[in-house]
Amino acid sequence: MAQTADKRVERSKAAVLFETYRQLTQGGISGVSIDEVSRVSGVSKTTIYRHWPSRSALLIDACSRLGNAHQAPDTGTLRGDLHALAMNLAEQLQTAAWASVYPSIIDAAERDPEIAAMQCELHKGFMAPFHAIAERAKTRGEMPLGKPATDLIAAIVGPLFYRRWFSKEAIDDRFTEAIIEAAIKLALRQEHG
Amino acid sequence: MAQTADKRVERSKAAVLFETYRQLTQGGISGVSIDEVSRVSGVSKTTIYRHWPSRSALLIDACSRLGNAHQAPDTGTLRGDLHALAMNLAEQLQTAAWASVYPSIIDAAERDPEIAAMQCELHKGFMAPFHAIAERAKTRGEMPLGKPATDLIAAIVGPLFYRRWFSKEAIDDRFTEAIIEAAIKLALRQEHG
Repeated sequence: MAQTADKRVERSKAAVLFETYRQLTQGGISGVSIDEVSRVSGVSKTTIYRHWPSRSALLIDACSRLGNAHQAPDTGTLRGDLHALAMNLAEQLQTAAWASVYPSIIDAAERDPEIAAMQCELHKGFMAPFHAIAERAKTRGEMPLGKPATDLIAAIVGPLFYRRWFSKEAIDDRFTEAIIEAAIKLALRQEHG
Repeated sequence: MAQTADKRVERSKAAVLFETYRQLTQGGISGVSIDEVSRVSGVSKTTIYRHWPSRSALLIDACSRLGNAHQAPDTGTLRGDLHALAMNLAEQLQTAAWASVYPSIIDAAERDPEIAAMQCELHKGFMAPFHAIAERAKTRGEMPLGKPATDLIAAIVGPLFYRRWFSKEAIDDRFTEAIIEAAIKLALRQEHG
């Protein structure tokens, strides 16, 4: 009996998350309506709020399914690793569902501290492979130990994000490769003095 | 008589725009409610929709007041001009009202073609000084003629935007200067072959 009830709960939760995720990828965070989630999933609002205490809590749960963690490549050189990561990111920005949802999270994070904390975690997950390859480049002596990996990350990820969401220009291989070269020069440069 | 009516119309429009702009800077695009604009401004919804045929039209009008056009600096060198522009942008990203509103425009532009067209115009205006200084650097022979200014822009603006809205790290002078150096190397590099 308890098992059957557990299964029913799991099924309800899955239906709610599925519909929330669908609305999220279609209309961004502001496009998610709990009334509509309840109607489509057939799960009452009372039950929804029993599992997720607030709209933000449900959104956070759905958003956490947006990005799948990426393994850090290990090609043996910083250039090779950056190339693999940047090409993959460029591809995803132009095809993956999360790319059209992420601006709505960034927007909500400007005003909602719960969403801001969730965005911070999502961002950390997205950037983990970059930190991993920078660490290895430092261990190999390829990158100066005192150089912050975050500068390198900003110099690669920033221009790609900018093209996808702000200038809406094409992200072709020529562009991505030029950005990688510039970022490597930044990463390997010794500080003055 | 006609003049008095004209003045009244101008006053109503100004009151509507003022309140729309206030809501926009406080809650982003999705935070603007026409009902609330009507209530606070004392201008009926019928009158509002007489002046702006749609919510998007009113939002576009209010958003167009967000950025004030910047003059392109003219220091005599690409490095000097980029330094002036990037430092000013870094400062604005951390203090100006538009910096907290822009993500809501980027988000809405993913789904609303009217807002997307407006964002495209806003972006063009923001980037005009960068294009102007790149043109001058080409005229001086400082930058290769075939080099797209848009690569240079992405390499400067991208990392600054990324830090403001995505990683939320501080944008200090050290970072901005490192980014400028990397972007200059990208801008001055001759293509292979």
